Amino acid sequence: MTLADAVRQTAAEVDQALDAILPQPHGFHGRVQEAMRYAVQAGGKRLRPFLVLETAALFGVPRDRALRVACAIECLHTYSLVHDDLPAMDDDDLRRGRPTTHRQFDEATAILAGDALLTIAFEILADEATHPDGAVRAALVMDLARAGGHEGMIGGQMMDIEAPNHSFGAKEVIELQARKTGALFEFSCQAGARLAGATAQDFANLHAYARDMGLAFQIADDLIDVTGTVEQAGKAVGKDQEAGKATLVSIYGVEGAKAECARLAESARAAVAGYGPKADRLAGLPAFLLDRAS
Amino acid sequence: MTLADAVRQTAAEVDQALDAILPQPHGFHGRVQEAMRYAVQAGGKRLRPFLVLETAALFGVPRDRALRVACAIECLHTYSLVHDDLPAMDDDDLRRGRPTTHRQFDEATAILAGDALLTIAFEILADEATHPDGAVRAALVMDLARAGGHEGMIGGQMMDIEAPNHSFGAKEVIELQARKTGALFEFSCQAGARLAGATAQDFANLHAYARDMGLAFQIADDLIDVTGTVEQAGKAVGKDQEAGKATLVSIYGVEGAKAECARLAESARAAVAGYGPKADRLAGLPAFLLDRAS
Repeated sequence: MTLADAVRQTAAEVDQALDAILPQPHGFHGRVQEAMRYAVQAGGKRLRPFLVLETAALFGVPRDRALRVACAIECLHTYSLVHDDLPAMDDDDLRRGRPTTHRQFDEATAILAGDALLTIAFEILADEATHPDGAVRAALVMDLARAGGHEGMIGGQMMDIEAPNHSFGAKEVIELQARKTGALFEFSCQAGARLAGATAQDFANLHAYARDMGLAFQIADDLIDVTGTVEQAGKAVGKDQEAGKATLVSIYGVEGAKAECARLAESARAAVAGYGPKADRLAGLPAFLLDRAS
Repeated sequence: MTLADAVRQTAAEVDQALDAILPQPHGFHGRVQEAMRYAVQAGGKRLRPFLVLETAALFGVPRDRALRVACAIECLHTYSLVHDDLPAMDDDDLRRGRPTTHRQFDEATAILAGDALLTIAFEILADEATHPDGAVRAALVMDLARAGGHEGMIGGQMMDIEAPNHSFGAKEVIELQARKTGALFEFSCQAGARLAGATAQDFANLHAYARDMGLAFQIADDLIDVTGTVEQAGKAVGKDQEAGKATLVSIYGVEGAKAECARLAESARAAVAGYGPKADRLAGLPAFLLDRAS
């Protein structure tokens, strides 16, 4: 099975788990539950769930537990897209080729659906079905809250909004990306270790992998914004350039960014080499993402 | 000490704890942390924290643990106000006499600050400082996620938005309020029992208290919207009437609503009577809230 097939197959499995875990719309408040499902069902590669499931497999974590964490991270990621697409933020009409949630429903419903997806992410983690040990569940909640919070993803969104008012260099752009997308990748890569009660060395390995893979992913995404088509990106392209935002591609140039991406892919591969063939798909992922962009 | 003094004194204690627990603004993402603090520092009676602290005291829960839960519920409550005030929702310019967060900062920052306050609420609960037993921390997270989620507060907000499209009777208005404000009151009243590992009977008593107290509070709030001034309410008044929304006041009439409120206050008092003098402040609270409205 190719890596592309594995990613597709996992996405189908995650879609099914999400369908089962999300509420069925009912009653006078059903509209917000409909909007939650609509936003999540936009699909996509389910890259963060893939990372959860692949890293959890390194430690033999039961699949059903890892799948719950995969659903939680995807709910949180989806909420961030719903709020990010709002008129007051990026004002996007399309997401993966479909109307964004506030275009399909309305702004108020989209705000509430985002809030509800963020909230349910923590509900999923705190549920006994995720892990029998309460301390593990609480640790997962803590990890996700930090990754998604004011020092993590939300802090990155704030930096992104502030970016046009500053002349960010490579250091600041890397910090921005580490917060905006890196923190959730790190959560996704370490959740399996948390579920398994792995060693500090495991956490360090997965931290290194997540950092390099996340940055490679972001550069690949920026490359698509510069060189790609709407079909490739599944969303409007050229927006960063238009907004005058510094990205690693604007700083390094297209060729320099590709070279940096390749270096990061190699470094990420090395970080998980010690886990043997079980880590093959993780090792190949950054190069796979880079291919998509070139 | 009068109940009003006790509420004020607790609010000051909670304000101090919130100041210590909220992040200090720093870096390029400091603006969202500033907005988090601004929103929380709007003050108010801190009624939900008061309920947490008073019910926790029934079971001898250490004050520092109860205070952390009090901060968590206030962060979550504040996020709901920040998002509720947005132009796409209630479009309010004033909150407790100050510019709302999106008026003081901007819409994007207010959306992010709300998201961050929701997120930090779970971070606070999941932290070991809240309780040494991970299962208790996870249970608190679960309780709060359900109270604040699509079947709880957010579901109530959604019903509230849908209300003008329907002719809600008393049953639907009570359901709406049970979700919109009741669920968080219930969390606040039961968190102490959770921290203490109290009995099922305790949870049932506090459930009954929270239900009656919450509805009395909501009727009092609706009465202020009808009969009060901007100074009393600390926000625009007459909005429900203007929007043609059914409330228990519009259904029962002002005098009928006051009578129902008094009945609920008595029922709430009875629910905690078994705890003796320790519950005196809880027992007096509904009448205190009703007084505020008349």
